[in-house]
Amino acid sequence: MTTLKKIHGLDNLKKADIQQLEAALQELTNGIEKLDQESISGMQKRLDAKIKPLRSLGVLEDISQQLAGIQRTSQPEIKGKAVLLMAGDHGVVAEGVSAAPQEITAQMFYSYLNGEAGINVLARNSGAKVICTDIGIALPLDPPELMANRVKNGTGNIAHGPAMTKQEALLALLTGAKVAAEAIDSGINLLATGEVGIGNTTPSAALISAFTGHTVEEVTGRGTGLKDDALKHKQDVIKLAIRVNEPDLADPLDTLAKIGGLEIAALAGAILEAAYQHVPIILDGIISTAAALTAAQIAPLSALYMISSHNSEEQGHRIALKQLGLKPRLDFNMRLGEGTGAALMFPMVEAALKIADEMATFESAGVSTGDF
Amino acid sequence: MTTLKKIHGLDNLKKADIQQLEAALQELTNGIEKLDQESISGMQKRLDAKIKPLRSLGVLEDISQQLAGIQRTSQPEIKGKAVLLMAGDHGVVAEGVSAAPQEITAQMFYSYLNGEAGINVLARNSGAKVICTDIGIALPLDPPELMANRVKNGTGNIAHGPAMTKQEALLALLTGAKVAAEAIDSGINLLATGEVGIGNTTPSAALISAFTGHTVEEVTGRGTGLKDDALKHKQDVIKLAIRVNEPDLADPLDTLAKIGGLEIAALAGAILEAAYQHVPIILDGIISTAAALTAAQIAPLSALYMISSHNSEEQGHRIALKQLGLKPRLDFNMRLGEGTGAALMFPMVEAALKIADEMATFESAGVSTGDF
Repeated sequence: MTTLKKIHGLDNLKKADIQQLEAALQELTNGIEKLDQESISGMQKRLDAKIKPLRSLGVLEDISQQLAGIQRTSQPEIKGKAVLLMAGDHGVVAEGVSAAPQEITAQMFYSYLNGEAGINVLARNSGAKVICTDIGIALPLDPPELMANRVKNGTGNIAHGPAMTKQEALLALLTGAKVAAEAIDSGINLLATGEVGIGNTTPSAALISAFTGHTVEEVTGRGTGLKDDALKHKQDVIKLAIRVNEPDLADPLDTLAKIGGLEIAALAGAILEAAYQHVPIILDGIISTAAALTAAQIAPLSALYMISSHNSEEQGHRIALKQLGLKPRLDFNMRLGEGTGAALMFPMVEAALKIADEMATFESAGVSTGDF
Repeated sequence: MTTLKKIHGLDNLKKADIQQLEAALQELTNGIEKLDQESISGMQKRLDAKIKPLRSLGVLEDISQQLAGIQRTSQPEIKGKAVLLMAGDHGVVAEGVSAAPQEITAQMFYSYLNGEAGINVLARNSGAKVICTDIGIALPLDPPELMANRVKNGTGNIAHGPAMTKQEALLALLTGAKVAAEAIDSGINLLATGEVGIGNTTPSAALISAFTGHTVEEVTGRGTGLKDDALKHKQDVIKLAIRVNEPDLADPLDTLAKIGGLEIAALAGAILEAAYQHVPIILDGIISTAAALTAAQIAPLSALYMISSHNSEEQGHRIALKQLGLKPRLDFNMRLGEGTGAALMFPMVEAALKIADEMATFESAGVSTGDF
């Protein structure tokens, strides 16, 4: 993995002041382009010549075209794949919104580094790397270098005040962008989002409610296993967080800072960076999709670079995907997070491009085109 | 590929009389067992020790358990994968039920043998073989050895009479079983179904209507691209076929012979053989699922060995899956057939077993189990 010297004009994010961070984010969002229509048409022509009824490979063809438009060529290629796994803790766990203890975040982070967790297995099965970033775990890590990208030791308790300052949100977001940029610089051109953070379905549901206008009840699920009473309590905490913090919904960064999370901010930044660099990014479950919604609020064109994966068990997930113009493609009743749903989508994206590259045409195979 | 000497007591299917064929099918169906509950429980214990919330990998865990129950060990393994692609033609195309001309079946068969069609690309992407069998193409093939397993040159026109005789249906079914047995004998222990046959959504819809009790309108789709008028005509032809042939719904073989197809019979036989030999089999779209319904009518326990894949665009598909107790897991708007949807499921099944084999346990990773 390379370490980039500069990211959007800044050579040291941690030493930048808020104006410099804002200018860097502006540079990033301004640089996100529409997809290239000519490349999409070129891919469509390639696919239509293949020995199959027109459009009969459905979403695989959609993905081929999307990648053509993103890479700005009718011959897109996948050179390397990675899951960007962002880790952060949440002050709101003090309210009892999660069935799992906060120490799990740090413990799981080590297991990702050791290559032994669910996401490692599924990424390996798809030939993808897992790039782990501590963006805001609460506990210290050993060795201390693991904390190089940490913005703060977990967010504030959103039931009482903001998750973070606007400067911290900007820093987390641009650090996520930097991690994505480093991955792309190392040759990776298909990304996926992943995360760990005990309690993080709570800020995710808060953001999805804020950005979609759906009620808290509609977007809040059971996280890693809450019972009925606990679910009701979680919903009450989310409503309280929105009331206490009064996020300015017209200002996505204000909303992110007040009721979001550090790993959510980092993922939003990674998504924006992927779009900026013409790299597709696969979304995982509800936390990743809350980050994607945030990214799309900041830069609507970034949604064109997203690929949906599974339909997680968290009910706010599908609502958020719909607002992004996306539909889940895998229905596996999964609710683990980490990027596990997204990792299952890697072979599908590769299959889509292989259709374009390896299938015969009606002409080359001597098959009648008939009238179909 | 090995060539088996005997299949269920018969050394030459084509020379067997109807009583011998019936006895062979009886031997096959009688040998299909329930899944092994002890192995399923053993797998459940393995999965529950992994560093994740209980059951949070959803369908991946279901598949791991199913494979344990099928292979009768809590440590199931995948040793080799193949798509069994059965090809057959349909006399009913004379009624104008398909937008594509019949010659396509033979032309596509050559393209499968050449490794250049959609199924070849997707199977290769998943490390699986494609095993192609001409069970009843209408046109001659060159070289003639390609026709070694052919039962007849396409079915009769079901709008006027039976698709085939009961003896032909038995022969096609047991030939499918033989092809599956040869694949298994060569080391493959994860199968998928695939097919080609212009017009074959028509007999598939007829069988699904017959076996599920749903109306012809409910189960009939547009095949490879029918317009509204043509869809209505197709439904009328299916109703006529059921009226003319009067299949005995209590006798699945009679129904299969009268309104089915040769490749459907062969796939039903392959599914029964997979179940008989404790091998899981992934179902593709509506034709494969019509075959699976037929297999389950003959031997209900065979449904325990089936794995669903995608939700094809053909509307009868989901109805048939539901009757089998299955749900589609991939939603890619595909309608190509060949086994293309099933091939996308191979990496998912492999991922399921790798979770069991490669993930750390709470104990080995030093992660708190907490209360979740």
